[in-house]
Amino acid sequence: MKITIIGTGNVASHLAPALKIAGHDVISIRGRKLKPSSLDKETELYIIAVKDDAIKKVAKNIHHHSAIVVHTSGSAEMKVLKQCSSNYGVLYPLQTFSKERKLNFNNVPLCIEASNKKTTNILLSLARSTSKNVFQINSSQRKWLHLAAVFACNFTNHLYTISEKMLKKNNLSFDLLQPLILETAMKVIESSPKKMPARGRSPLGWQTGPAIRGDKEIMKKHLALLSKENQYRKIYKLISKGIQRAHE
Amino acid sequence: MKITIIGTGNVASHLAPALKIAGHDVISIRGRKLKPSSLDKETELYIIAVKDDAIKKVAKNIHHHSAIVVHTSGSAEMKVLKQCSSNYGVLYPLQTFSKERKLNFNNVPLCIEASNKKTTNILLSLARSTSKNVFQINSSQRKWLHLAAVFACNFTNHLYTISEKMLKKNNLSFDLLQPLILETAMKVIESSPKKMPARGRSPLGWQTGPAIRGDKEIMKKHLALLSKENQYRKIYKLISKGIQRAHE
Repeated sequence: MKITIIGTGNVASHLAPALKIAGHDVISIRGRKLKPSSLDKETELYIIAVKDDAIKKVAKNIHHHSAIVVHTSGSAEMKVLKQCSSNYGVLYPLQTFSKERKLNFNNVPLCIEASNKKTTNILLSLARSTSKNVFQINSSQRKWLHLAAVFACNFTNHLYTISEKMLKKNNLSFDLLQPLILETAMKVIESSPKKMPARGRSPLGWQTGPAIRGDKEIMKKHLALLSKENQYRKIYKLISKGIQRAHE
Repeated sequence: MKITIIGTGNVASHLAPALKIAGHDVISIRGRKLKPSSLDKETELYIIAVKDDAIKKVAKNIHHHSAIVVHTSGSAEMKVLKQCSSNYGVLYPLQTFSKERKLNFNNVPLCIEASNKKTTNILLSLARSTSKNVFQINSSQRKWLHLAAVFACNFTNHLYTISEKMLKKNNLSFDLLQPLILETAMKVIESSPKKMPARGRSPLGWQTGPAIRGDKEIMKKHLALLSKENQYRKIYKLISKGIQRAHE
């Protein structure tokens, strides 16, 4: 397929090579350079991989009714692309991309939605050419999926950041926590129903620590340690309460 | 070494077989059955692997001055064992243990502290017989390490729980998030200074998502989705603020 990718961020930087490896003919261009005259008329698919608030601006410059136009956002509406073509949709890769880090694109879940059945089928086939994890996800599901990803990825990374800061302050290496971080993730990743007893099929069943044990003494000590760290103290209280409620 | 483990919880259930595999002679007993008369007089090391608030109670029943007595807690003071022997200490395994899940004990960081140099050396040597990750950690460091582990493991698992609940409500499988969860963990695990540019050496450098991008539109949409989920809303606001502050 002849594909034009608009955007030079983390998503575009991973998507472009993955599509090339799958044998597609890919042109990448910067969002700000985009003018109707700069577009290749043979393009069959435009992938708009820019920040949400820039999608509309890019879309204004694309009018190509024989092509498909998609964006890659977890949150933006599909219909913002309505003006570009009657064949539009979403190709949302559910992963945390960083330019500095390679990853196996074949495992990245690709979430597809489109304005009509023909477009859906073309996008599904394209997605399957680069990933073995392809899903049809509607707009409402996609919003929740993106929000869930913020909790599971962005917020989790912030917790790692907080723990690293605590260790640094006490002359301890972050390496100490790495086996724990990996095991915490692997517990919920390897919990397929076939392998695990019922309680292990959900992160709920793997919860450990003072809050779930109701160990008030330890929790008091932890809050005392955080007496000068108001922000961490608030997070400690709020999430501990959440853990206890989730198990009620 | 002849070892008596007191406790039948998650820690004891992993520690006992690991010590046996390393060639030690291990007796396991339940905490509540512990009476001075039930103790094996040839024991060289007692490992008290019970909840923090039960350690003192167990320690009251051990008076064995030729032996070493340790507990496995991240939070309890070392000196609660002072009455048992002049040789006492801590053997704190920094990992999340569940009886249902096997793990490679050889990777578990073991944090050692002891009342005197001789005991320190014996504990170090014992720890090294079961793990390649052995560290001398003092009481103050251990408290912070335990607190950091609560953030990186227990709190992270709660975030996974929240995301799973969001997906379930929208008829989506938790499997969708698994590549993301793994990649988020692997980013900070594989970030050795040798491999990574400066910003990749810390979770701070891997932060992605709407909060760090300052994408107010998406954040507003997310908070609107959570209008009926007050607890999640609070977590969303608090951690997003934390992410923004951490990067100021």
